[in-house]
Amino acid sequence: MAHNDSLSAFLDVAVDAAKRAGEVIRKGFYQTKHVEHKGEVDLVTETDKACEDLIFNHLKQHFPSHKFIGEETTAAFGVTELTDEPTWIVDPLDGTTNFVHGFPFVCVSIGLAIKKVPTVGVVYNPIMEELFTGILGKGAFLNGSPIKVSSQNELVKSLLATEAGTKRDKLTLDSLTNRIESLLFKVRSLRMSGSCALNLCGVACGRLDLFYETGFGGPWDVAGGVVIVKEAGGLVFDPSGADFDISSQRVAASNPLLKDAFIEALQQSA
Amino acid sequence: MAHNDSLSAFLDVAVDAAKRAGEVIRKGFYQTKHVEHKGEVDLVTETDKACEDLIFNHLKQHFPSHKFIGEETTAAFGVTELTDEPTWIVDPLDGTTNFVHGFPFVCVSIGLAIKKVPTVGVVYNPIMEELFTGILGKGAFLNGSPIKVSSQNELVKSLLATEAGTKRDKLTLDSLTNRIESLLFKVRSLRMSGSCALNLCGVACGRLDLFYETGFGGPWDVAGGVVIVKEAGGLVFDPSGADFDISSQRVAASNPLLKDAFIEALQQSA
Repeated sequence: MAHNDSLSAFLDVAVDAAKRAGEVIRKGFYQTKHVEHKGEVDLVTETDKACEDLIFNHLKQHFPSHKFIGEETTAAFGVTELTDEPTWIVDPLDGTTNFVHGFPFVCVSIGLAIKKVPTVGVVYNPIMEELFTGILGKGAFLNGSPIKVSSQNELVKSLLATEAGTKRDKLTLDSLTNRIESLLFKVRSLRMSGSCALNLCGVACGRLDLFYETGFGGPWDVAGGVVIVKEAGGLVFDPSGADFDISSQRVAASNPLLKDAFIEALQQSA
Repeated sequence: MAHNDSLSAFLDVAVDAAKRAGEVIRKGFYQTKHVEHKGEVDLVTETDKACEDLIFNHLKQHFPSHKFIGEETTAAFGVTELTDEPTWIVDPLDGTTNFVHGFPFVCVSIGLAIKKVPTVGVVYNPIMEELFTGILGKGAFLNGSPIKVSSQNELVKSLLATEAGTKRDKLTLDSLTNRIESLLFKVRSLRMSGSCALNLCGVACGRLDLFYETGFGGPWDVAGGVVIVKEAGGLVFDPSGADFDISSQRVAASNPLLKDAFIEALQQSA
């Protein structure tokens, strides 16, 4: 395991990469309204690819021996297996639907896994100018100020986030909406922002008390956020209550006071 | 009907009132994490009341002959009937759950109805620093720049917003989640931000294509936003397809290209 000094150096380089990609996203965000639909699709693809290239190039320059897993690269060249090597796991643009529509929950998500453990996390929303960072053992921050999860201990007063995902078959939607109904009997209210990484950061800074999502794109959606949640005093786990597995496309997060009740509610809603 | 010059003067005073209330909300927003739960409830109530008093006093100073309807005043003293007189309809803090949790979708909503027609609208989010304004016949603006609804014409590519409301009986939740499921088969995705007024403004500036909500608090949730939607080129109607009625606690909004398909989808989901 790399020691703390190198972890800080890793974070600094990742923040730099996220901010450069953020500039590209910000430009595109305000353009989407002014392009034809075909152009819109191209703009998303171009922005996504340009940001991933920019981030990977920047990281590779500094850390040529590290491994890389990215949403776009995976889409183009297939799955890269996560090994014990230091591996950067990158979603260059989380919240692409929001990006297309101009809804302000979009972000860059960069996580570094070492021995498969997410160790450094950066989630940057360039529209709302919010930079979330975390290093294993060294705390979590929003724009440089320490953040922590909420101290809520009652499900009925908790704010829950989830997402409608992209699958539109009857089985998936039945299960999605049944689960939502079951949970709505137990929590205060529900938010859907359209970004998995920002939902994790929402739990980390206490804006949200509970978050779960299943069936999202891949480890790049969560690799940055899970470090930030944990370092903010939160817990990340599988919605079934099992241990979190970064490759499973299933995630849940809450503060420690709510975890047991949340898992019970999730189990009863499955 | 007042002429354009006085409408502009009405708007200026309302913007001033919204900004002053916004300062109070901004202060409270960053305090909620630091108060005990009992204190939290007090903070909401106090902020809500302080903002309504501040807004009403400011408006009354300038327009002593106008009528006033506010969420807090109504809660305390009962319903004031909407007459043909110029009437300010105010939600001093829309998105109270968000306010408590620190989720950034909170706003002041101020609408002026003349002969029961919403004529001037101001919706101000002091956290994201977004000021939406509209005057009947004179356009809609975000921070002073003209806005317009999206040009999307296909339901399947549309971003829909709705809310989970506050009722938690089985009949309401069955109907809510069945409707959501039915609509999810037809639209691209779903957002829930927790503020009715900001959802209307989201449609107005094209971040959202579709919005509906039933069972919200009262006319103060929509009086400001409906002017802004209409002046941005959008349509406001009842989810059944009937004409919009400001007292009905039912609202839907979209661009003109999507209205018929949206109403059909809403009817099929009822």
